[in-house]
This record gives sequence, structure tokens and C-alpha cells, in this order.
Amino acid sequence: MTLPDTMQGLVCREDGYSGRSEGPTIENLADWVSLESLPVPQPSGRQVLVKVGLANINPSDLHYIKGEYGQPRRKGVPAGFEAMGTVVAAGNDPAAQRLMNHRVAISVVKSGSGAWATYALTDASTCVPLHPGLRDEDAAALIVNPLTAFAMVRLAKEAGAKSFVMTAGASQLCRLMASFGRDEGLTPVAVVRREEHRSLMEGLGAFVLNSARDDFPAMLKQMIGECDPRILLDAVGDEVSAAIFGSMGRKSRWIVYGKLSPTSPPLPSLGQLVFSGKRIEGFWLTEWLGAASPDQRREAFETVQARFVSGAWKTDVSEVMPLSEAPDRLAAALKGMNRGKVLLRP
Amino acid sequence: MTLPDTMQGLVCREDGYSGRSEGPTIENLADWVSLESLPVPQPSGRQVLVKVGLANINPSDLHYIKGEYGQPRRKGVPAGFEAMGTVVAAGNDPAAQRLMNHRVAISVVKSGSGAWATYALTDASTCVPLHPGLRDEDAAALIVNPLTAFAMVRLAKEAGAKSFVMTAGASQLCRLMASFGRDEGLTPVAVVRREEHRSLMEGLGAFVLNSARDDFPAMLKQMIGECDPRILLDAVGDEVSAAIFGSMGRKSRWIVYGKLSPTSPPLPSLGQLVFSGKRIEGFWLTEWLGAASPDQRREAFETVQARFVSGAWKTDVSEVMPLSEAPDRLAAALKGMNRGKVLLRP
Repeated sequence: MTLPDTMQGLVCREDGYSGRSEGPTIENLADWVSLESLPVPQPSGRQVLVKVGLANINPSDLHYIKGEYGQPRRKGVPAGFEAMGTVVAAGNDPAAQRLMNHRVAISVVKSGSGAWATYALTDASTCVPLHPGLRDEDAAALIVNPLTAFAMVRLAKEAGAKSFVMTAGASQLCRLMASFGRDEGLTPVAVVRREEHRSLMEGLGAFVLNSARDDFPAMLKQMIGECDPRILLDAVGDEVSAAIFGSMGRKSRWIVYGKLSPTSPPLPSLGQLVFSGKRIEGFWLTEWLGAASPDQRREAFETVQARFVSGAWKTDVSEVMPLSEAPDRLAAALKGMNRGKVLLRP
Repeated sequence: MTLPDTMQGLVCREDGYSGRSEGPTIENLADWVSLESLPVPQPSGRQVLVKVGLANINPSDLHYIKGEYGQPRRKGVPAGFEAMGTVVAAGNDPAAQRLMNHRVAISVVKSGSGAWATYALTDASTCVPLHPGLRDEDAAALIVNPLTAFAMVRLAKEAGAKSFVMTAGASQLCRLMASFGRDEGLTPVAVVRREEHRSLMEGLGAFVLNSARDDFPAMLKQMIGECDPRILLDAVGDEVSAAIFGSMGRKSRWIVYGKLSPTSPPLPSLGQLVFSGKRIEGFWLTEWLGAASPDQRREAFETVQARFVSGAWKTDVSEVMPLSEAPDRLAAALKGMNRGKVLLRP
């Protein structure tokens, strides 16, 4: 197959970090990336080139294009960490060659070329060959959310928790964690801000709290009494998160993995940290994947794929948008993100 | 020996917790405890009664009498966690009987009767029989600060740190940690607020930073470059602590063990916790002692006592005050605490 010389991609407008920390929201995608025609990258060594079928949009992508993520932007290089597609070219390394013509899910490494483009470049090690029964929509969102859900629920289980609390509790990620947590024998607690999310999350087996209701303090107390969660998986980082952590039992851990709130609560009191032995830490999938053994990674990839194939998990998609329309329309479409993922089709 | 029926003690004026968190400072000791005559406690089982020679005053005592510590006050029962003295009565248990007439250092258990009194009641397990070469002043302060210093420096070493930072860096505890840390092969960094403490801490082998100076940000940067500390041992919990933690390298740990500041900084940013893998936790000696094996405890007690006997450590005492004068004079005497310990003599 002959590849074209050029492709379309949504490329970063700036280099490096912004120095700000505004969170994963955008008013206008064109503020941060522009649609450009650029050369198709050439894979070498262990690299593979993937013709993108569907690309995903995660909060980490929005942090990244705004210069607020854990790795620096590269001006002129396409953004986008996650996609599914077909391997159409590979470096000389056998690990890359073996993937030729395979349908894969990918996450793009730092040295690669992003997934919001006709072609993406990444390392063979980040490719997950796909089960034929897996839908393209599930494949496009196979890595970031599902592996994060797998890793954080397992972390809660290995910490000996019987229950864990999730803020932004109706997000796609929390839906995955709720059903997986339940299947692993834990009680998921979803903290939501809209009553319309209650039945959805209860249907997944979660205890649901609405932090926007006047009875939230009483419901929080009841939940602590019934569920005794010792792990808080927090995507928000606001006063509500702090109140939940403050009400949790001894040796509880507040695990931050996102920051939807623009402001931060004060550090918890001496008593929380010293006398109750609680702690505050972060979770980053990139770090987890780097620290995991090959066996742990294999189990994780097999587990998440099997859950989608069996129907235990499903990626809710609100819209599949042509890449070329994203600069004008993506920001508005993301405002409805709680109803489902927006995917990009190059 | 016949014991008297009654004794003098500084007893708590209130029960339980205050619900506030003002920190370990007092304007007037009589606001919190009163000097009273009360029955001499009777030991039973594994308990021992100790005739107090010198009792110590630690920040934890001040937290306790104010109702801000990790265990509730008991109205009418003497305060005071730490002392040295002689075992003058013991319960029937051989572990207690073996200590009769021994000179010991003690920390008082929750069910005991405090050390700010003529006699203190505690469990045999908390008594440390004393080396004859140990001065009474060192014996009265043998447990709380020295064991905390031992445990926290070892924690830094076991975490693989080459260096650790101490706030309130000229305190008695930090003096112990500086010389012990140096002897364990680590570089101690003392953050002080007065220039007069520089030579003292440099003399103990510490890198010294003065957070009150205009050049603090530049000195902080230089220190991070030279020492690369990954452990922050924090007794203050203010904006300076947060700035130090923010400048420290990947996977650094902010370990809170005290709270001298009445206000708290906001939680660190997403980047600090998630992308840099840092975490925030607490240290409590009571918890550490409870989790330590008998061998670990024995090594800890032997190490700290040997350091005092050899002269590697010394407790600086600014005043030995009669117990009866404490209600009127203690608060003023504590204002000079950085010059040395105030001890109580019943």
C-alpha cells in the first residue's frame, strides 16, 4: 500500500507549558490547536504508523493542549493521546513488524505524533491488538479510561477497602469504575451534582450522593456509616472533596486524578493527617503503566477488552465528528460530555 | 515505702475535644489546667506508679490540654505525657513487678494518670529503664522528641532520601534530627525564621535556610539543586511549607507531624500530586510505636539512650520550674522555648 505524503492534523499552536492551571475546559478548540496539512510521519525501529479510524477526546487531551499536562506541548505536532485504527507502516524492529495490518487501540507516546490526525505515530509497546468482537467506538476509548478504571479499582481493592468514593461520579470513567468495582466485590459511591444522574449510577450498583442537595451532609454521614469507604477517587479537588475526605475513617486515602475545580480547598487539619493517619496522593495512568510488570499490563488489557466484548462495559458516544469540523464545533459538543463521548473521525 | 494518700497535679479543666484547631500555644496555663490535690492512683495488672522526678512539656501536651490532640481530655485527671522518675508501686503482673525501684523514663498511656503530678500511672510497656550515665534532664525528654527524631530520620533513610527538610528547623526535635540524620549519612536541611539560629544548626551539620529573608526563594532553589531532598518533615503547615514541597523533586513526601501555623495553605496543584507523584501524609509517634515490632522498639530505645549517654545528643534546658508555679508562670516561660526545654519538678 502506498501512503500519501501529507495528512490533516489538529496541531498544537504553542510549545511547552502554559504555567497556568485552569482545568480541562475549553471555550474554543481553535484557541489551542489548528487544522493543518503536514507530512505523514515515517516509523522507524519499534515505531508504528496507524491510520486512525476514530480518535478519542479525554480531559487529559484538554489539559495537554492548554499546556497544563505532565508533558510539554510540541508546536506544529498533532495532539490527541488515544485512538483506534490500523497499522499501515512499521519500523524494522520485529515487535513493530508483527503489528502490520492489525486493528489496534493506541495511546501515543511522548516522542510520537498525535491521534487527532489522519495518521498517528507511536511505539509498538502501546498498541493493543483488538478482539474482532470489539466495536470501533469501544476500541477508540479502550486505554485511557478503562485502564484508569481498572488500575484505580484494583488499587482500592489491594488497599483492603470495602468501598470507594468517586467524585464527578457520573463521568464515563466513573461508570466504568462503578460496574467493575461492583464486580470486584466493592461498593462504589458516586458523588454527583445532578439528580438526573442518580438512576443511571444506581443502575450500575453505586450508592449515590448528590452534593448539590441540602441534605448532602446528612447523606454523607449515612453513606460513611453504611459503606465505610477508605479510598476517595477524586477528579474535582474542591471543598466537597475535602468534606468527603474529612468524614472518612482512619487511614483513608484521597487519590487525586483530575482537577475539574479551578480553586483548591485548604490542606486538611493536623488531626486528619497525623492522628487519623490519612494521606493525599495522585494517580497518573502513565506512571502506573510505567511501573506495571508485563504480566500486570497484559492482565489489564485483557480484562478491559473482555469487559467491552461481553457487554459489561460500553462506551456511550454522543457524537462522531469529522476532524475538519472540530475547530468550529468541538467545544460546544463537549459541553454535553456527560451524555457520552465525542469521537473524532479523520 | 509507704505512699501518701494524696498528691498535687495539674488536672484538665475540660473533658473531650474542643472542636477547634488553634495550635500548641497558650496565653495562660490556668485556662486549661488547675493545680489540685487528688488521690494517688493505685497500679494494678501491668500498671506501674512512678514518683515523678522531672516532667517534660511538649507541643503535644499543649495540643492535648486544649482538646486538639488525638485522644480526648479527661476532666480532673492530670495532664502530661512524658517524665522520668522512680517506680514506687506496681501491679501484680511480673512485667510491672520487675520495674520496682527502677529509674525510668515514661510516656503515659491513655488509661493512665498524667506526668504533671507528684505521681504518674502508666503501663510497664511504656517504661524505659535508664542507663546510670543518663542525666535526669535527658531522661525527662527521652521518649517523645528522641523517638520521633529516630523514627522520622529512619523513615527518610528507608525512603531512599539523600536529604530531608525540617521546618521550625531550630526546635529541640530538629536539633536531634539534624545530628542523627548526619550520622545516618543524610543531609539535614533546617528552615528557620531567625538568623541567630543559623550557626547553631550549621554546627549540627545542617544546610540552613532562613524563610524570613528576601533571598529565601533563591536559597530554596539553590538548596534543592545541591541537596535534592525528597522528604519534608513539617511542624508548621503554612505557605512556606507549601512552597518548599512545591519546589521538591518527583515522588517527594510532605510529612506533617505538627501544626504551628493557625492557617493552612491550599492543597498542592494537580501537577504536584498526579504528574510528579508527590504525596502528603502525617506522622504520629503513638501510631509508630503501636506498629513497631518489639525488636524495632528495643533498637529505638537503645539508640536514643546511647546517643544521650555518649553526648551526641543533649537536651537543652532553659528552666526547671516547680509544678506549683506552673499555672502562673509556665506560659511566659514557654515563649523562650527555642532556647531550651522547660521542665516541671513536682
